[in-house]
Amino acid sequence: MLTLLSYVAIAAQAMTAALTAGQRSMDWFGVCVLACVTALGGGTVRDIVLGHYPLYWVANPYVLLLASGAALLTIALAQFVDRLRWPFLLLDALGLVVFTIIGCNVAMQSGSHPIIVLVSGMVTGIVGGVLRDVLCNDVPLVFRSELYATVSLATAAVYYLGLKAGLNAELVSVAAASFGFAFRVAALIWHWNMPKFVYDKDLR
Amino acid sequence: MLTLLSYVAIAAQAMTAALTAGQRSMDWFGVCVLACVTALGGGTVRDIVLGHYPLYWVANPYVLLLASGAALLTIALAQFVDRLRWPFLLLDALGLVVFTIIGCNVAMQSGSHPIIVLVSGMVTGIVGGVLRDVLCNDVPLVFRSELYATVSLATAAVYYLGLKAGLNAELVSVAAASFGFAFRVAALIWHWNMPKFVYDKDLR
Amino acid sequence: MLTLLSYVAIAAQAMTAALTAGQRSMDWFGVCVLACVTALGGGTVRDIVLGHYPLYWVANPYVLLLASGAALLTIALAQFVDRLRWPFLLLDALGLVVFTIIGCNVAMQSGSHPIIVLVSGMVTGIVGGVLRDVLCNDVPLVFRSELYATVSLATAAVYYLGLKAGLNAELVSVAAASFGFAFRVAALIWHWNMPKFVYDKDLR
Repeated sequence: MLTLLSYVAIAAQAMTAALTAGQRSMDWFGVCVLACVTALGGGTVRDIVLGHYPLYWVANPYVLLLASGAALLTIALAQFVDRLRWPFLLLDALGLVVFTIIGCNVAMQSGSHPIIVLVSGMVTGIVGGVLRDVLCNDVPLVFRSELYATVSLATAAVYYLGLKAGLNAELVSVAAASFGFAFRVAALIWHWNMPKFVYDKDLR
Repeated sequence: MLTLLSYVAIAAQAMTAALTAGQRSMDWFGVCVLACVTALGGGTVRDIVLGHYPLYWVANPYVLLLASGAALLTIALAQFVDRLRWPFLLLDALGLVVFTIIGCNVAMQSGSHPIIVLVSGMVTGIVGGVLRDVLCNDVPLVFRSELYATVSLATAAVYYLGLKAGLNAELVSVAAASFGFAFRVAALIWHWNMPKFVYDKDLR
Repeated sequence: MLTLLSYVAIAAQAMTAALTAGQRSMDWFGVCVLACVTALGGGTVRDIVLGHYPLYWVANPYVLLLASGAALLTIALAQFVDRLRWPFLLLDALGLVVFTIIGCNVAMQSGSHPIIVLVSGMVTGIVGGVLRDVLCNDVPLVFRSELYATVSLATAAVYYLGLKAGLNAELVSVAAASFGFAFRVAALIWHWNMPKFVYDKDLR
């Protein structure tokens, strides 16, 4: 179930990455690379940081084809995409919470400290988007926009605490995912933002 | 033979990186770092992704001196370099195909899936240039310019299929390298490009 | 002692990173992430490159709280910070030499080649700042500004040669740190710079 949802999440993140690539006029190859980096980068960084080898896309390379295929499909369908803003945002929110929960699982399986479990969830959820923005030469959106990382952190906390409380694992997954999804959608609708830190002097 | 060519490739990539660093007015140290990252970054990322330790430049640290030396030599010779555009481009094309073949070999030695063999070749061939462009605050050229990554992918495919067909390994190396080199030079001469994906709406 | 100084160094680098984040109007979460990446990124890249697992912040996750706490404190105190330019620069210089010495130690414990010991020291000292600048969409300062990386390299060389000469390890640590600190402060006061390589033609 989580595996199936993770494929949906990979495809969704690949599609939004493809649109970002199109805004930079990348060629088709660049679109596919950016899609793979965005969709798989979070899990890759998590696995490298935790020393969790082989990386999951090395063990299961078909996800590279999935991400590339979703990116090429996006190119083909680009003219219809602006009518699909909300479906995209919802799929992306689903991807965020699914990736977060998977990241928590990987860290818990290796017996990590609770802080590392939360960090692992967040890294899996948000690093793909950070890498996408770095490759597109932007300051990462996740550091500035609506509650995205916060949703990931809250989802990870709900999931971890639910499991620690001894509740049924599947129930906790569904509850954490639903909570995170609703939180993200609410943040999008009402434009919830973290407070910003604005500092305009130059220390150097 | 491949080892010798890889030294040529490292020097060539270090030299083009040094010129890019000069366009950003980096200091001599920055030039050396950018040269090392560009020349060795593809292999480093490949080794980390495949869990292939020790990294090849940790095992053989003299390649750091080679890349730094090539970069400093470029600073000394910079005034003559504009007459050397084509030698540079040819050396760079050689580096691309040599790195690609080395990357395929590393993945095959660890018994990876065919898709991972191709990805390993491409990562080794092009990631150095991607890191160079990220550190220079550019959108990576490889996502937008003449067939560079495509040449790497095609070279890897020819090499892999040749070996799978049971042909002599040295013959396949030479054939794949020659094919890739000719492909890249042709792309430079006739300005072959991948089709671009241009998308100018803002989804967010 | 070195452990204690490393906490001071982590806090100092987190605080300067927070100010940089404020110049980009990041939200509080982004400030904390940038602080963690800057303060812990150098050691992380070193550990990944050397295959030295678990990463030190995975083994000791409280340093993440230390870096985040220092960043949030910086937000609270931002209005007073411009009077603190020199304390900041001095703490940052301390962080540079402490991180460099720690990096040399890690490489020496795994029996690395002398070149790798120096590189490990430099990576630990400067990569955090490079990652900070990449995430903030800048060409890394360390490639262009006063002798920062050079101080790290010189500190590592003094430390390594002192130990090789058979001197007392604590004495060598103090001597290398003092030398590096004085070198950095002198470079700041008298604006010492590496020569720059300026190249303004376009090869491509």
